[in-house]
Amino acid sequence: MQILKFSQLSAIEKKLINAAKRASKGAYSPYVKTNVGGAVLTNNGKIITASSFSPASTTVNLCVERAVIATANAQGQRKIKILAVFGHGKNKSNDPLPPCGVCRQFLYEITKITGQDLIILSSNAAKTKIMKTSIKELFPYPYSRY
Amino acid sequence: MQILKFSQLSAIEKKLINAAKRASKGAYSPYVKTNVGGAVLTNNGKIITASSFSPASTTVNLCVERAVIATANAQGQRKIKILAVFGHGKNKSNDPLPPCGVCRQFLYEITKITGQDLIILSSNAAKTKIMKTSIKELFPYPYSRY
Amino acid sequence: MQILKFSQLSAIEKKLINAAKRASKGAYSPYVKTNVGGAVLTNNGKIITASSFSPASTTVNLCVERAVIATANAQGQRKIKILAVFGHGKNKSNDPLPPCGVCRQFLYEITKITGQDLIILSSNAAKTKIMKTSIKELFPYPYSRY
Amino acid sequence: MQILKFSQLSAIEKKLINAAKRASKGAYSPYVKTNVGGAVLTNNGKIITASSFSPASTTVNLCVERAVIATANAQGQRKIKILAVFGHGKNKSNDPLPPCGVCRQFLYEITKITGQDLIILSSNAAKTKIMKTSIKELFPYPYSRY
Repeated sequence: MQILKFSQLSAIEKKLINAAKRASKGAYSPYVKTNVGGAVLTNNGKIITASSFSPASTTVNLCVERAVIATANAQGQRKIKILAVFGHGKNKSNDPLPPCGVCRQFLYEITKITGQDLIILSSNAAKTKIMKTSIKELFPYPYSRY
Repeated sequence: MQILKFSQLSAIEKKLINAAKRASKGAYSPYVKTNVGGAVLTNNGKIITASSFSPASTTVNLCVERAVIATANAQGQRKIKILAVFGHGKNKSNDPLPPCGVCRQFLYEITKITGQDLIILSSNAAKTKIMKTSIKELFPYPYSRY
Repeated sequence: MQILKFSQLSAIEKKLINAAKRASKGAYSPYVKTNVGGAVLTNNGKIITASSFSPASTTVNLCVERAVIATANAQGQRKIKILAVFGHGKNKSNDPLPPCGVCRQFLYEITKITGQDLIILSSNAAKTKIMKTSIKELFPYPYSRY
Repeated sequence: MQILKFSQLSAIEKKLINAAKRASKGAYSPYVKTNVGGAVLTNNGKIITASSFSPASTTVNLCVERAVIATANAQGQRKIKILAVFGHGKNKSNDPLPPCGVCRQFLYEITKITGQDLIILSSNAAKTKIMKTSIKELFPYPYSRY
């Protein structure tokens, strides 16, 4: 895991963070104000974006990490190599946040599909700190019944 | 709740079921073989489709009902009036299946957004039986903390 | 569904609401302050209680309805006929709240185990309004793959 | 993470695995046959057990890791230092399985409550391989909005 400045990112990484930032405007979050956007880069070079969806019952929250995989899958795209996330409004300290445990389990499946690690970038709302990590790092000794 | 024949559906309902059927081919379900497709009709006449995504850890299954809302939301579309679902492979009796409780809670949020009921169509894999119902019927006395 | 006064409840129903109220003090809810307690009555007359557990990541919230079934199951008790719930702090209107969709799906399983409906009582924090309903009423046309 | 033989465990660790094994008999799993038991050791020396509960809708599965925390919490016990798990029937390779992502997020909360790491033991069904790890190891860079 590294914490980077935006200026340290590669061109495609910057593009993904900017796409995720734009997507964060489409978040549905009338109750808790955590507007999160996401963008994935597929193995064949496509960028697909989506937004978090947070219902009144928080237990069924759909984090952007899962929303963007669903959206990519709807386009026949499951071979994803980078996932960029932007936002997390309630995070007072303004640090970038990694995926929750539910999303780590979900995203692990992408690594089974591609046979490669999944790079994760997460930017704070100020775009001053970018966390760079991966599923292999965030979900060691993965759970999988198959 | 009604069980209808495909021939009894309106033109747009048939179109939605057929779109959901095509989307079911994009389902990710290598373990349990429940390939489900979904299609929504928005208030402004757009049709958006998505597919179920079933990881090795079934607890994080993303049913098509939530996947298609995430996909529509990624296009800025949350005002949905009809949701059509096609599939559910493991359903031996070949009856159409209604949404699970997780999805009922999630879809209820759409009715809060639109201020109208959400019509739900669910077709069995043979397209011989179409369940027609709604969130108001499936999720009475809704839970909502706000 | 009925809204009752506490005085209108039967002796055992009062006992269950009072047990749920005591259990609400054991709720883990440092972030959102929704302290909910639950009590079940088994077919063989046992009362078992538990409390809600709400982690920092709300997506993994364990509502009291599921917590109390887990606790009863740990004692070998799955044949449950009444579930009483007390609390829900953030509910401004002070109305009793029904189970969320996740819990309706979960509790539906109890009706498959017992072959009978599951009565649900839910009291507001002031104990002035008690909702009386059941899984059959709250979860019509249930989803079940088997 | 270490893979140990049962004989390499300490006396209390053996006791916990044996308690989890007994608890696995109480699992509710009529559909998928994954009978998992769990036992926790609290900071004050109590052992509390519970079992997995797997409804027909697998999305609302309650893994034993969460079930046993709910059960301990119902007894006013949240300060837990060791969690032992036994089982996971469908695991063909007969390797011990670590917690899923949902449970890692949930168990992480215990480490916030206690201010100490949570040791996790997981035994395969043959009790020939015991995985010894911890939340700190399984859930690095934890997600927490607070």
